[in-house]
Amino acid sequence: MSSNYRNFRNSVPWLILFLEAIFIVLFYFLFSDDGASRSRISYPAFQDVSHMVIFGFGFFLTFLKRYGFSSTGFNLLIIGLGAQCSMLIEGLLVFLQTENEGGLKRITKGAVSMTAVVISTGAVLGKANPVQLILMTVVEIIVFHMSRWMNNTFLQVPDNISMMQVHLFGAYFGLAFSSRFPEPSPRSEKNASTPKSDLFSMLGTLFLWVFWPSFNSVLAVNKGRAIYNTYFALAVSAVTAFVLSVLTTKDGKFSMTHIHSAVLAGGVTVGYAAHSIEYPWIAMILGLLASVITVLGSYCLQRCFNRALKIHDTSGVHFTFGLPGVLGALAQIVLLVIKNWTNLSRLGYLVMIHLGAVCLTISVALITGFITG
Amino acid sequence: MSSNYRNFRNSVPWLILFLEAIFIVLFYFLFSDDGASRSRISYPAFQDVSHMVIFGFGFFLTFLKRYGFSSTGFNLLIIGLGAQCSMLIEGLLVFLQTENEGGLKRITKGAVSMTAVVISTGAVLGKANPVQLILMTVVEIIVFHMSRWMNNTFLQVPDNISMMQVHLFGAYFGLAFSSRFPEPSPRSEKNASTPKSDLFSMLGTLFLWVFWPSFNSVLAVNKGRAIYNTYFALAVSAVTAFVLSVLTTKDGKFSMTHIHSAVLAGGVTVGYAAHSIEYPWIAMILGLLASVITVLGSYCLQRCFNRALKIHDTSGVHFTFGLPGVLGALAQIVLLVIKNWTNLSRLGYLVMIHLGAVCLTISVALITGFITG
Amino acid sequence: MSSNYRNFRNSVPWLILFLEAIFIVLFYFLFSDDGASRSRISYPAFQDVSHMVIFGFGFFLTFLKRYGFSSTGFNLLIIGLGAQCSMLIEGLLVFLQTENEGGLKRITKGAVSMTAVVISTGAVLGKANPVQLILMTVVEIIVFHMSRWMNNTFLQVPDNISMMQVHLFGAYFGLAFSSRFPEPSPRSEKNASTPKSDLFSMLGTLFLWVFWPSFNSVLAVNKGRAIYNTYFALAVSAVTAFVLSVLTTKDGKFSMTHIHSAVLAGGVTVGYAAHSIEYPWIAMILGLLASVITVLGSYCLQRCFNRALKIHDTSGVHFTFGLPGVLGALAQIVLLVIKNWTNLSRLGYLVMIHLGAVCLTISVALITGFITG
Repeated sequence: MSSNYRNFRNSVPWLILFLEAIFIVLFYFLFSDDGASRSRISYPAFQDVSHMVIFGFGFFLTFLKRYGFSSTGFNLLIIGLGAQCSMLIEGLLVFLQTENEGGLKRITKGAVSMTAVVISTGAVLGKANPVQLILMTVVEIIVFHMSRWMNNTFLQVPDNISMMQVHLFGAYFGLAFSSRFPEPSPRSEKNASTPKSDLFSMLGTLFLWVFWPSFNSVLAVNKGRAIYNTYFALAVSAVTAFVLSVLTTKDGKFSMTHIHSAVLAGGVTVGYAAHSIEYPWIAMILGLLASVITVLGSYCLQRCFNRALKIHDTSGVHFTFGLPGVLGALAQIVLLVIKNWTNLSRLGYLVMIHLGAVCLTISVALITGFITG
Repeated sequence: MSSNYRNFRNSVPWLILFLEAIFIVLFYFLFSDDGASRSRISYPAFQDVSHMVIFGFGFFLTFLKRYGFSSTGFNLLIIGLGAQCSMLIEGLLVFLQTENEGGLKRITKGAVSMTAVVISTGAVLGKANPVQLILMTVVEIIVFHMSRWMNNTFLQVPDNISMMQVHLFGAYFGLAFSSRFPEPSPRSEKNASTPKSDLFSMLGTLFLWVFWPSFNSVLAVNKGRAIYNTYFALAVSAVTAFVLSVLTTKDGKFSMTHIHSAVLAGGVTVGYAAHSIEYPWIAMILGLLASVITVLGSYCLQRCFNRALKIHDTSGVHFTFGLPGVLGALAQIVLLVIKNWTNLSRLGYLVMIHLGAVCLTISVALITGFITG
Repeated sequence: MSSNYRNFRNSVPWLILFLEAIFIVLFYFLFSDDGASRSRISYPAFQDVSHMVIFGFGFFLTFLKRYGFSSTGFNLLIIGLGAQCSMLIEGLLVFLQTENEGGLKRITKGAVSMTAVVISTGAVLGKANPVQLILMTVVEIIVFHMSRWMNNTFLQVPDNISMMQVHLFGAYFGLAFSSRFPEPSPRSEKNASTPKSDLFSMLGTLFLWVFWPSFNSVLAVNKGRAIYNTYFALAVSAVTAFVLSVLTTKDGKFSMTHIHSAVLAGGVTVGYAAHSIEYPWIAMILGLLASVITVLGSYCLQRCFNRALKIHDTSGVHFTFGLPGVLGALAQIVLLVIKNWTNLSRLGYLVMIHLGAVCLTISVALITGFITG
């Protein structure tokens, strides 16, 4: 342990400093003065997203007794690094497309992209050491932007939709990455949670719940509708989460784990289609389905699937973000099918593109996550 | 206990699912696509209210050692259900008046109405079981909207003022409801608080304090003035709360309970008149009076009144929200009297209407709360 | 102890009530109805600043085991009093200049000024009793506004820049004030921190981190650029804080104290120049330097300097807010020199004015802090 720690002490700071120096040099060459240009992103919306990523996810992951400070602290470190990295890559891609965006929009996109990394971190919490986490951050951000760029260029997916694949990407990258780590002993006290740490985690969950409408609407075209639908989906999925939690646990009590995951599932699912759903009842049904899939997923996956594939998913990112993300993508396709029912040729084309985008994202995430691991 | 729990397990989920199914069906019939229509509510203001209801009230009630998770968890469940219910009833009433509002305004009103339920929950915390809480939520929301509708239609009270009666209604409904429960043994360890849970509760209180100006201004016509007056009232009542807390406790220390309650009293009191007070010193004096009434109320009520009437008011909603609400309504009438001094006939009419509205609200709350209990 | 407490009980409430009565009377004479006038401050930005001062600083100072509730509670009391006091003095000064500002801008300025008092409180936490804290609040606010007024009138420093000297003033006033208290025994268990209290403190730090861009931009002319630069400076200083923390601690672990202080240093430093920095890489380098100066400062100051001068700086305000403030002021001068390189006469004049303003602020803070102590 001692040599391990000395090793850790020697490599972490120099690695970070090296990255930071590269960032500053690249920023020097890439970014001219455009912080002042007007952008369509309002500052409060950006603030909400920033708050959610830093604060909500930081405390969402504090439920393990031993990782209270680690998870909030590392979260800040990773976001600090990742947001800069993300803006640089966006800057490089924008350079290719010679299209200039406002400074605020750039930071907002950086913050949204960081969600992928934070979700992946959830899967390896307590297993990866800081060096691994930092490398994972940089690689994941680069691969995520490449995947998004492929979606935008080859499949003509709009920018705001490809951004919403952040949950899918994060979850599957994290899972693939996590599968390369040895499974910890299941009875280890490291994975235990205490009532106090549960309360902190609830604090993070409530933050995420409250700010999710901002997250889904910040890059959307039709902001009002995105907020409206997300709110309904979240409300229904919160209610359903409590129902299912009582039904699935043996003693009929509410289970914290189920509630943490399922409460947010509605927001993840509705993310893809929030700006285009016309009636609130559709959003409500999506929220209901998302919650069902999450609780059932947590029930089945932890018993069968994870054991077979030797995946140890510390904070359940697979069923919290992965499955609802898939459901959301499918829902968006179904809604497209219903809308373009009359125009069959265009329908096939659209369905193919969206399916392609989802598959591309998942496979890129899985492959690169596995390689990085 | 065991049969009780089995019973609980059997009934809660089906009750919630049944309600949720009804909601989705009614939403299908009632709401067409209007989420995208422009409304006068700004999104950040809505976000503040939502944050305050979910997060502030959730943690405000965590001061009992045993109810940390229950109170934040149930709070989310109840708000999820109640907000949908509230929007449905609003939708039905709007249907009667053939007036269409934006989607965001609808959700905001739903969130503001939920305050009544959350306040009532405070009165029965630790006594009511989940089934009772859920039924209370649905009944209270229906009755509150009926009371508001009667105020609007028969007494011509403007919509934004009838909305501010939410504190009054919530407090007296909760008290009446609570009086039907047997009083728990006063020494029960369930009602004890710990320093840590007090800190969480302080967290909730600070959230409520910071967001109260948003709450008072979100539906007001003259937003700037409402914010300005609420801020002054809150500042003075926070300062007075500390003074009175030292004067009334025996050992001269600050008492958490007093501070929790009195800090917010200014905001509650000024809620009715925030948009019409012209000079900050009036708001400051209202804040001072509100704080005095709350601390004295807590001193007297807990010793004499509650024992006589056999009311056990777990988190003191009577003096936190009830009395300041009454004071606010009286203050509004006094201000009206001063303003319309010259026009005696109109004055009598106005005073009568406002007194009528307050009495109507309180009596409806008491009667229905008692029946529901 | 007992007589002390009786004394405390006798004097605190009457002192506060006396102050509050004066405030209400002065408000009655000074402020006419202008709460409704339009101002250039947006409400969400004000809300962010209010949230940050009340909530962020409240929890930022909870890291001492014994002062959890004290620090959040007193923080609220002090801000309640100080914000009113600050608005009164602003009102008096505005009266001299016969220039009228909107109500919201007045509250925002009051909240920003309160930062100075909150920072000073950090230096004497656990040493000063409530009476001393309240007197310090009133004196500090009066002196701060006088110092600002001297800067504005004699040195023609723009209002928004003189407002940013709030960190400098707060830190040095607090240090001078603190030097008059006897040093507590270093092993006293009062200064110990627990993992739980550290987590609460981290909560406060993250709040400050997230809301800092609002703080720097709320009074700035070029808001977009101020937000953009502050975000970069904060991100880099957070990353650097982790690096330096590992390098300076013996066991290679992250030290909470370093991270708390250094994470925010970037925001403090960039405060002066945030609206005028044209390229993000400058802000990034400032963030890096700020973090370095803070961690080195904490390393050196606590070992040598503080012992020599017998200063006991409970929460390290000297290196958290003082040194980065000086760095920021210097950085602003260097940037001015680079910009006005061609015009030497004007350059000398500008440099002199800015240096003068900084020295004036620091010396006024030190002298009055010492006298107050």
